[in-house]
Amino acid sequence: MKQTRIVLINTSHPGNIGAAARAMKNMGLEELYLVNPKVFPSAEATARASGADDLLARAVCVDKLETAIGDIGLVIGASARSRTLPVPMLDPRRCAELIEQQAETTRTAILFGRERTGLTNDELDRCHYLVQIPTNPDYPSLNVAAAVQVVAYELRVAAGLPENLPPKHHRLATSGEMELFYQHLENTLVAIDFLDPDNPRQLMRRLRRLFSRVQPDENEINILRGILTAVQQRRR
Amino acid sequence: MKQTRIVLINTSHPGNIGAAARAMKNMGLEELYLVNPKVFPSAEATARASGADDLLARAVCVDKLETAIGDIGLVIGASARSRTLPVPMLDPRRCAELIEQQAETTRTAILFGRERTGLTNDELDRCHYLVQIPTNPDYPSLNVAAAVQVVAYELRVAAGLPENLPPKHHRLATSGEMELFYQHLENTLVAIDFLDPDNPRQLMRRLRRLFSRVQPDENEINILRGILTAVQQRRR
Repeated sequence: MKQTRIVLINTSHPGNIGAAARAMKNMGLEELYLVNPKVFPSAEATARASGADDLLARAVCVDKLETAIGDIGLVIGASARSRTLPVPMLDPRRCAELIEQQAETTRTAILFGRERTGLTNDELDRCHYLVQIPTNPDYPSLNVAAAVQVVAYELRVAAGLPENLPPKHHRLATSGEMELFYQHLENTLVAIDFLDPDNPRQLMRRLRRLFSRVQPDENEINILRGILTAVQQRRR
Repeated sequence: MKQTRIVLINTSHPGNIGAAARAMKNMGLEELYLVNPKVFPSAEATARASGADDLLARAVCVDKLETAIGDIGLVIGASARSRTLPVPMLDPRRCAELIEQQAETTRTAILFGRERTGLTNDELDRCHYLVQIPTNPDYPSLNVAAAVQVVAYELRVAAGLPENLPPKHHRLATSGEMELFYQHLENTLVAIDFLDPDNPRQLMRRLRRLFSRVQPDENEINILRGILTAVQQRRR
């Protein structure tokens, strides 16, 4: 579970970054990525991190989400609202069980969005699952560090539980491999006149959602790309 | 669970009181007692409470623990350390189950001690149980509001309060529609020379497993078959 990465996106308040780092270290998590934080580093973050300032010092600051998840196979977004998107929803317990089950072959990142507005639709498109913390419907929006605390707590509990024996999958394709696949797919669809680059509508987004649900492993993504290559060679 | 009381004892930082109030309201708890807080009320507490300032305004400030638990039947102390005291220990999940089980007849208070030193031995003597959050042994001490968050989260889960509805999917493709799709896919893969009908190996079986995991809905299966048709038309 140490390998599970926490990604904070566009965090406004440095105190929240520090509190999230403390929550992570308390629960035994070690990898923090920050995508475009408003202020970082910051004395307030360090103060709120308390004894977790080492984790904060090792935090990786990047300017694009892609960089934070390029090497990650399983991407889970924390969401306060019920989204109408067809991304499967998990509660924190199921989320932790899923991560634990995949941990031997596949690394996971959990994305936490902006304090006020959460994750954008583009960011949600990168997620295989959403995790939603059950809340008071009259006041559902947790502080971001509090949300990290709950999700990390369930990870710690799940790591301590006796192992189920799930079927072993191969290593899941990473986000970077999936992006190469989507690009290959899009090029091919344009080449066969199925996708009009001047009027793409929602086609690629819908295909992304579909393949995101599949979570192809490394062998499967090789098969799919082999098919695309065969289609392209026929075109020449 | 609304009736479960949170008691913060001798809290030093008003921000922690505010953050605890927010965590409580997010999880549906309503009753906050403060025993000798260092600073209260406080602008910092109100700021950190965010939309839970109503709960903070109703908080009851007392100068003795006895006053905060006089009407309470079940007293549980939050403890970071393993105590040598003969008080039964619960993890947060068992703690929530116990409270939920007693809720019809008995009110519960959960005590959270000072930021640095926790609960005194006298305070521990008032407790029927201790609740201990599982932590990283190298860094076990949670922020007090983070501890309130975890314990309150388990209370909400145990109360089994109405779940949010999952996002609605379109109707999933039927088995018959999936068979037509697999036939269409196989014909297309033969046409582009990706699949050799004389030596099919396990290819179609692997693709079946992949698409079976996707569970495409009716719109998605139409998109996929449209792509196959576009590939075939290019072949002619």
